[in-house]
Amino acid sequence: MSTRLGDLVESLGGELIGDPDIAIIGIAPLDAATASHITFLSNPKLRAQASVTRAGALVLSSTDHPVVSEAYKGVCVLTPNPYAWFARAAQFFAAAQALPVTPGIHATASVHPSAQIDGSSSIGPHVTIEAGVVIGEHCIIGAGSFIGRDARIAAHTLFHPRVTFLAACEIGKRGIVHSGAVIGGDGFGFATDQGHWIKIPQTGRVRIGDDVEIGANTTIDRGALEDTVIEEGVKLDNQIQIAHNCVIGAHTAMAGCVGVAGSAKIGRHCTFGGAAMVLGHLSIADHVHISSGSLVSRSISEPGQYTGFYPLARNAEWEKTAAVVRQLDNMRDRVRELEKLVRQLTAKHDSIS
Amino acid sequence: MSTRLGDLVESLGGELIGDPDIAIIGIAPLDAATASHITFLSNPKLRAQASVTRAGALVLSSTDHPVVSEAYKGVCVLTPNPYAWFARAAQFFAAAQALPVTPGIHATASVHPSAQIDGSSSIGPHVTIEAGVVIGEHCIIGAGSFIGRDARIAAHTLFHPRVTFLAACEIGKRGIVHSGAVIGGDGFGFATDQGHWIKIPQTGRVRIGDDVEIGANTTIDRGALEDTVIEEGVKLDNQIQIAHNCVIGAHTAMAGCVGVAGSAKIGRHCTFGGAAMVLGHLSIADHVHISSGSLVSRSISEPGQYTGFYPLARNAEWEKTAAVVRQLDNMRDRVRELEKLVRQLTAKHDSIS
Amino acid sequence: MSTRLGDLVESLGGELIGDPDIAIIGIAPLDAATASHITFLSNPKLRAQASVTRAGALVLSSTDHPVVSEAYKGVCVLTPNPYAWFARAAQFFAAAQALPVTPGIHATASVHPSAQIDGSSSIGPHVTIEAGVVIGEHCIIGAGSFIGRDARIAAHTLFHPRVTFLAACEIGKRGIVHSGAVIGGDGFGFATDQGHWIKIPQTGRVRIGDDVEIGANTTIDRGALEDTVIEEGVKLDNQIQIAHNCVIGAHTAMAGCVGVAGSAKIGRHCTFGGAAMVLGHLSIADHVHISSGSLVSRSISEPGQYTGFYPLARNAEWEKTAAVVRQLDNMRDRVRELEKLVRQLTAKHDSIS
Repeated sequence: MSTRLGDLVESLGGELIGDPDIAIIGIAPLDAATASHITFLSNPKLRAQASVTRAGALVLSSTDHPVVSEAYKGVCVLTPNPYAWFARAAQFFAAAQALPVTPGIHATASVHPSAQIDGSSSIGPHVTIEAGVVIGEHCIIGAGSFIGRDARIAAHTLFHPRVTFLAACEIGKRGIVHSGAVIGGDGFGFATDQGHWIKIPQTGRVRIGDDVEIGANTTIDRGALEDTVIEEGVKLDNQIQIAHNCVIGAHTAMAGCVGVAGSAKIGRHCTFGGAAMVLGHLSIADHVHISSGSLVSRSISEPGQYTGFYPLARNAEWEKTAAVVRQLDNMRDRVRELEKLVRQLTAKHDSIS
Repeated sequence: MSTRLGDLVESLGGELIGDPDIAIIGIAPLDAATASHITFLSNPKLRAQASVTRAGALVLSSTDHPVVSEAYKGVCVLTPNPYAWFARAAQFFAAAQALPVTPGIHATASVHPSAQIDGSSSIGPHVTIEAGVVIGEHCIIGAGSFIGRDARIAAHTLFHPRVTFLAACEIGKRGIVHSGAVIGGDGFGFATDQGHWIKIPQTGRVRIGDDVEIGANTTIDRGALEDTVIEEGVKLDNQIQIAHNCVIGAHTAMAGCVGVAGSAKIGRHCTFGGAAMVLGHLSIADHVHISSGSLVSRSISEPGQYTGFYPLARNAEWEKTAAVVRQLDNMRDRVRELEKLVRQLTAKHDSIS
Repeated sequence: MSTRLGDLVESLGGELIGDPDIAIIGIAPLDAATASHITFLSNPKLRAQASVTRAGALVLSSTDHPVVSEAYKGVCVLTPNPYAWFARAAQFFAAAQALPVTPGIHATASVHPSAQIDGSSSIGPHVTIEAGVVIGEHCIIGAGSFIGRDARIAAHTLFHPRVTFLAACEIGKRGIVHSGAVIGGDGFGFATDQGHWIKIPQTGRVRIGDDVEIGANTTIDRGALEDTVIEEGVKLDNQIQIAHNCVIGAHTAMAGCVGVAGSAKIGRHCTFGGAAMVLGHLSIADHVHISSGSLVSRSISEPGQYTGFYPLARNAEWEKTAAVVRQLDNMRDRVRELEKLVRQLTAKHDSIS
């Protein structure tokens, strides 16, 4: 299961310095790599560690190369983006080592006769597929998953076990949905009438573009009247909640435990740190980056990094500062009053001196 | 599949102004409605938009009607609560368009012979129902759901696919539970002994009233000795965690990602914004409203709106203000000292002048 | 189903004061216990309540005993840790009342012939077990669970219904995993290349020690290259997210909705309040306690309690204080300026007087 380094570089790009004929069996971190591994340096802070790696080959930038190669005598692969090269090499080895998928429908699956499932796709045990579903080529639907009526799943999409993909929802090509995710549950929509909640039927769908990954136990609600939209290339980590009618712009990534309230429109190429929260009916521009644990309470029209979490402290110190926070408007008034008094004193003083 | 407007108004109430014989096929937003749609105006800010809607019929209040009807010439339905009217109309159209449910137990379901399941109910594929379960009339148990021993599900309750409803738990009539929800998992209860955690068996149940909706991947733990109680009319969004022994008062609603720690008692008609968090062993009065992202760290005895999240800012600004927050008790001391000095200066000054 | 108190004390330890022959049917809270129940006092604040309990037996410390026994005339069990005694007694009664488990593989389960499942274990309906799985003695795998290829589950481990335990993951003895948990989903790892995310295959595992409990809908991701590790005795509540390559030290406990970002190393005997959040690549020492709702944004090397959440207030007050928080660096500058002016005034004044 080894690969000739020269073949790998030919496939992935980069400039090879050294013997193209060495055999690589996989990827490893700088400190764990052996002569059969390829490793990478993407953070200049790790130059010293890279210099002493025992890896057979090292992927790095042409900036880092002169420094590291003073000590490191293995093969080098120069590329402007070593981390992306590493990711693609890791995909190469993962694909080479992946077990073959058996096409077909498992005997225990429950599939409606009107469903159209490409013969190259694999439907696992205990899966339920309702009427009118369309599943493209080379899809894998993991054990125990549920695909609701008229849902559409495009080619090369992978559902891990126990995914719920409800009626009429759509996902594009090369999607990955992790276990426990629920796509297309009802949005949380109610009118109030004399203290009671009147449910508003949620008749929109969830539409997901190509190359989207959705984490374990993440939930994406269907729209109320219109659709909830996840554009191409979006990456959602675990335990994320996307409410009804949201639009998540292309290539935006969200870390675990993020929540987005209803009808928020989020731009492209944004990133959200873990447990960030976005209120409803907001717009967020492209290239906005929200720090972990921050609540977005208003629209953001300018790109940039935004933050809002209370700084951690020893509990005893937090208690002291929190007590002041609760009185901050009082302190502001006292500072204003002091400024007035000091102005008066200064004026009087000047008139005396 | 169209409905005569006059019939709809007769069923739902309201005063019809215009032709009762127009045919309505459904609900649509103000800007997307056509002559076959009914739309609604509940927010006076949207009067201008309502004035130019092309909807066949417009539901609005008698306050908005004189203004809007200057331009809008379609049929009007006057009602004091247009949004609730809209919700009920949407329910009417959703029911009319719903697919018929096939009663009976799917061939792949695993049902204990002692379970009592009303013949009008529908049990989906790959469902497991344990001994002693009782399921009332016209229930739907979605594919892959699990109903534990002696659980009780009252009439007209809908479980979407892949719900877990564990032993001895109960839910009332007209309940809706979304996919991935787990009702009746063990509460998180441990004693400590010499640095180890000793599990306290959780022998209470979860008791859920009528007309409760529970969102996707929401979890509600069973009580330790007593029960966890969700009263009638409560609405829980997705990814909510309700810990053991909590009581959630009737008609309270919680948005996504809310967490409630053990033994909290929450009043009736409360609302919780997304990701709000409630500490354990607290009491919250009726009609309390907690803003998104706020942590409730003490009991609340007065109705009203409560908030506590750090304001979002550009990261560079946050870094500056957060540095001051960490030193706020120091600043308070400096302000006190300044006040003392200024008092002294003023006194001296007065004695001089 | 009753137990002689003397036998229980012989089994669990403690000093019995009174009649060892009374029959106990179970555990109850102080205020609900009857003559057939045993109850406990662990919080001295509840001494008055304990004094009037109608319980047949009361477990308490030798410190509380003299006070309480002035009024309480039932049997007493003295132990230094009444709460741990209570937990073990509750385990005793729960085990006595538990239904017998039927060993064997349910007819609807889908089990690969190469899986090694001990004959004493019970595999529920609609379970999927892939090739190479090893399951030890007296395990219970609940209905609808999925066990991926080559996973290992040690003796006496209990999976509640609908657990997902993915390929190559391992869990030790006496584990408990609650419904909806997903162990071994892909970590969230991507390189960026020209605005696109390149997936990094996640080839590590999740390794879980003995005596670990994992809550409902909690997710633990597999490592990128190395493993994610949960050490022995760790207790995780519901809806927790543990990202790839984390290490959670032995006997650490986390309440609901906690999130831990990638590669965080958390010490032993730590506790995390609900919805606490830990950023990635941090180290947290042993015996660190993080308050609910607090974000850990830097490593912590000293034991102790740490806190960081915005204090809750009435919304109107929060709006006022939050407005000041946004301007705190400005206020700090004004205080500095005031200090300078007051120093100057004082100096001038002194020179005048």
